Amino acid sequence: MSSRPRRRHGAGREAKRAARRKMPTSTAAYIDRKIPYYELLGDEALELIEHNAETVLEEIGIEFKDFPRALKLFHDAGADIKGERVRFPRGLCRSIIQASAPAEFTQHARNPKCNVVIGGKRTVLVPAYGPPFIRSLDEGRRYATIEDFRNFVKLTYMSPGLHHSGGTVCEPVDVPVNKRHFDMVYSHIKYSDKPFMGSVTAPERAQDTVDMAKIVFGDDFVEQNTVITSLINANSPMTFDATMLGAATVYAEHNQATMISPFLIAGAMSPVTVAGTVTQILAEALAGMAYVQLVKPGVPVIFGTFAAAVSMQTGAPTFGTPEPSLVMYAAAALARRLGVPFRSGGGLCGSKLPDAQAAYESANTLVTSALAGVNFMLHTAGWLEGGLVMGYEKFIMDADQASMLAVFLAGVDLSENGQAMDALREVGPGSHFLGAKHTLANFETAFYRSPLADSNSFEQWQEEGSLDAAQRANKLWKSTLAAYEAPPLDPAIDEALLAFMDRRKAEFADREY
Amino acid sequence: MSSRPRRRHGAGREAKRAARRKMPTSTAAYIDRKIPYYELLGDEALELIEHNAETVLEEIGIEFKDFPRALKLFHDAGADIKGERVRFPRGLCRSIIQASAPAEFTQHARNPKCNVVIGGKRTVLVPAYGPPFIRSLDEGRRYATIEDFRNFVKLTYMSPGLHHSGGTVCEPVDVPVNKRHFDMVYSHIKYSDKPFMGSVTAPERAQDTVDMAKIVFGDDFVEQNTVITSLINANSPMTFDATMLGAATVYAEHNQATMISPFLIAGAMSPVTVAGTVTQILAEALAGMAYVQLVKPGVPVIFGTFAAAVSMQTGAPTFGTPEPSLVMYAAAALARRLGVPFRSGGGLCGSKLPDAQAAYESANTLVTSALAGVNFMLHTAGWLEGGLVMGYEKFIMDADQASMLAVFLAGVDLSENGQAMDALREVGPGSHFLGAKHTLANFETAFYRSPLADSNSFEQWQEEGSLDAAQRANKLWKSTLAAYEAPPLDPAIDEALLAFMDRRKAEFADREY
Repeated sequence: MSSRPRRRHGAGREAKRAARRKMPTSTAAYIDRKIPYYELLGDEALELIEHNAETVLEEIGIEFKDFPRALKLFHDAGADIKGERVRFPRGLCRSIIQASAPAEFTQHARNPKCNVVIGGKRTVLVPAYGPPFIRSLDEGRRYATIEDFRNFVKLTYMSPGLHHSGGTVCEPVDVPVNKRHFDMVYSHIKYSDKPFMGSVTAPERAQDTVDMAKIVFGDDFVEQNTVITSLINANSPMTFDATMLGAATVYAEHNQATMISPFLIAGAMSPVTVAGTVTQILAEALAGMAYVQLVKPGVPVIFGTFAAAVSMQTGAPTFGTPEPSLVMYAAAALARRLGVPFRSGGGLCGSKLPDAQAAYESANTLVTSALAGVNFMLHTAGWLEGGLVMGYEKFIMDADQASMLAVFLAGVDLSENGQAMDALREVGPGSHFLGAKHTLANFETAFYRSPLADSNSFEQWQEEGSLDAAQRANKLWKSTLAAYEAPPLDPAIDEALLAFMDRRKAEFADREY
Repeated sequence: MSSRPRRRHGAGREAKRAARRKMPTSTAAYIDRKIPYYELLGDEALELIEHNAETVLEEIGIEFKDFPRALKLFHDAGADIKGERVRFPRGLCRSIIQASAPAEFTQHARNPKCNVVIGGKRTVLVPAYGPPFIRSLDEGRRYATIEDFRNFVKLTYMSPGLHHSGGTVCEPVDVPVNKRHFDMVYSHIKYSDKPFMGSVTAPERAQDTVDMAKIVFGDDFVEQNTVITSLINANSPMTFDATMLGAATVYAEHNQATMISPFLIAGAMSPVTVAGTVTQILAEALAGMAYVQLVKPGVPVIFGTFAAAVSMQTGAPTFGTPEPSLVMYAAAALARRLGVPFRSGGGLCGSKLPDAQAAYESANTLVTSALAGVNFMLHTAGWLEGGLVMGYEKFIMDADQASMLAVFLAGVDLSENGQAMDALREVGPGSHFLGAKHTLANFETAFYRSPLADSNSFEQWQEEGSLDAAQRANKLWKSTLAAYEAPPLDPAIDEALLAFMDRRKAEFADREY
């Protein structure tokens, strides 16, 4: 971390500056939806899928690879174990989950104003996760660095539409794999005060994340509250591996949340049909969440879903097409019936560029996510090229859409002011509302104002350089980063985090992994 | 029409060629939705808006400008007339409409396989309407010509996702205003066999449209069936003008359908709130549809809605933002409660270019249109720059989205094949589905295949020239036009149409308008 010393010494001054100004996080910490879910399927169809998922669990079973603890826990709970294959009596996983998993929970942020509630009618919007590359108009596509990572943490911090700092907002490939998680977790804590995700690439990295959180929040607070939410992907089809199970176990033992996410390119890792894919998602999520509840009953767990569709021509994943939307609506309803929070969606796309393909696909997925009732919307901003690339311009575009989702989910104001009968009476036929009292009284709050979209006249747009959306987004991410000021962080905590990282990094300086 | 003689003499040969090949219109003529509507508001909220709309009709009233016939009909029906202002007893318009307006109707096409049913659970997708400019990557932005008009009729004909040839797909400004409607209607009939819209810019042009339809369908057929659907915009707020009322009257008298469409930039032509805007939409639509039913009880009429939101910074219309989506959901539900077909939506955007802004805004509006339950989706394809521009590349992009909507609205296959339990049993944990029997059996129909989206690897995409979506769309509209062959048209009908146009054009050769 080349910039650490400067940051370290400047922390006090930065903290004071940040405390003086209006924080970008002063908007709502999360969305409390006021509009109904879109219910694609009726009870009968959902019951059929639930029945089929139980059949998968009972007859086919789920493999828990290289992880005897899961086999032991499931055996004791009444499952049938053959090798690493676990077959579950009908309803076993569901009853384990429903006995203890919370319907919603608070993930605490180091700034309590940024605490998010996950579950129920809440929507928490989170940047993209995992891309090893970045793309910008200036540099094109290249491997991501820790500087990019910090930039996206800062951009997320500055985005009122995003509620959560995320996790691996990009892979900082310039940092060794076995030390990377320290710098990522530290960046989330240092450069933002929104909640964040933890490392899942090894159990000890999960433990490091917990330990760093304890430095920030205190030991007791962490053991009694949730301050980390982490992504546990299934190794679909119908398999969980030791790495993910190990990380999930560490988090569960420390009362930290995990989202158990079947990760499917339908047609490759699941059947080519919507109903078959949803069946598999439910079976995998039930098994994974049941494991977490067996480790620590009552720990927060999220029903995750990531589903794209395979291109039957190329074998590549496709996004924003109808089938994944249908899958998401069905899976969200199944999570509600189970009574647990739901993670899915975001601004998913297969496009290489922040172009029209990226936008159609992302918008299709974002709208679906909002209407389906996704509680934790990972990949809301920045995602390009099937998740291989984090785009600077794409991030700005998606963050704008994220802000729109909050307005949409707030629904229709039916107050007297919202009904606007006075305005209709004042203006009447043949006139216009631009100067009406009601219009002026509502001027500041009326209608979403995009910082990115151009609604000027053609002539004005030409005068300003005939820029497309990506070119305008390029200016916007640069001006946003230029305006960034770090949120205050207690210098003692900062120093303790850095000391912890120095010590831990030194412990395996001679290890390659 | 420079190409007329060639077309005329080649009609027989073209007809034979076209009859031999597989028609692009062999896919479904319209969408029969299998999924629920998204119901944003509950009954109580909808009743409140209905109550308020009746208050607008009763207390404020609607102006019918320079059109005594409307005043007379409404007076006789029991309304209060003061000057040109018509005030309606509560429930009068609603009862007039519900007494006679059909819940759905068939619009016949000259190819019966292309007949569309408008209303109920049907969705008919229609290209954009009205732009005086076109944009392409080759030529940029310029005024539209009749050649562009023909091109968009041909592209629509070749687009399996579009069900209707539309109306003024662009304004052919190289043809005099008073003769333009002939060439537009003729182009729809000649170059497509999908249903089309008629001229509304003067009552005599509406009559010309009806007369040309009679040449194609026969006099009796036209009087007894609907073969034209036309767009009648209100002059919002709360005003209808003589031009639109005159055209609506001609169509109604001949049993042809009209869509009565409040045309609102909310904040300018309606209040700055969603509820206020929807109230005004309902009041205007009720008054306009009631007029049409008084002219000819039982004639098909569509509840139209066009609502954008004004930019509070620039005064320009904005699209794809949350508020117009909320308006559309509410208006669609009000149309269902009234029991008439609903027109709204499409691929609306404010962007000057077929870029990410265009795509986000269009996708947001298209998805809303589909979920809201729009029956007649005008502006589905091609729209740019708030409707000033018809884009060649944008058309291709939107037509792709239109095809996706059909897949989405078909919902989830819950048959045994759809449930895919055999596939799950065959593959099991840790394997993949690509070679599974079930996958192979469903290979041809599984998952939407976009002709435009690129899902190749980054390397493959680079090898193919690193094209963005607009560049790929540019190739696609050109190859589509190159592959176009006209649908067969009886040469006698063609000649009669041309003779009618020659005679009528000669009648006002010396008129400027």
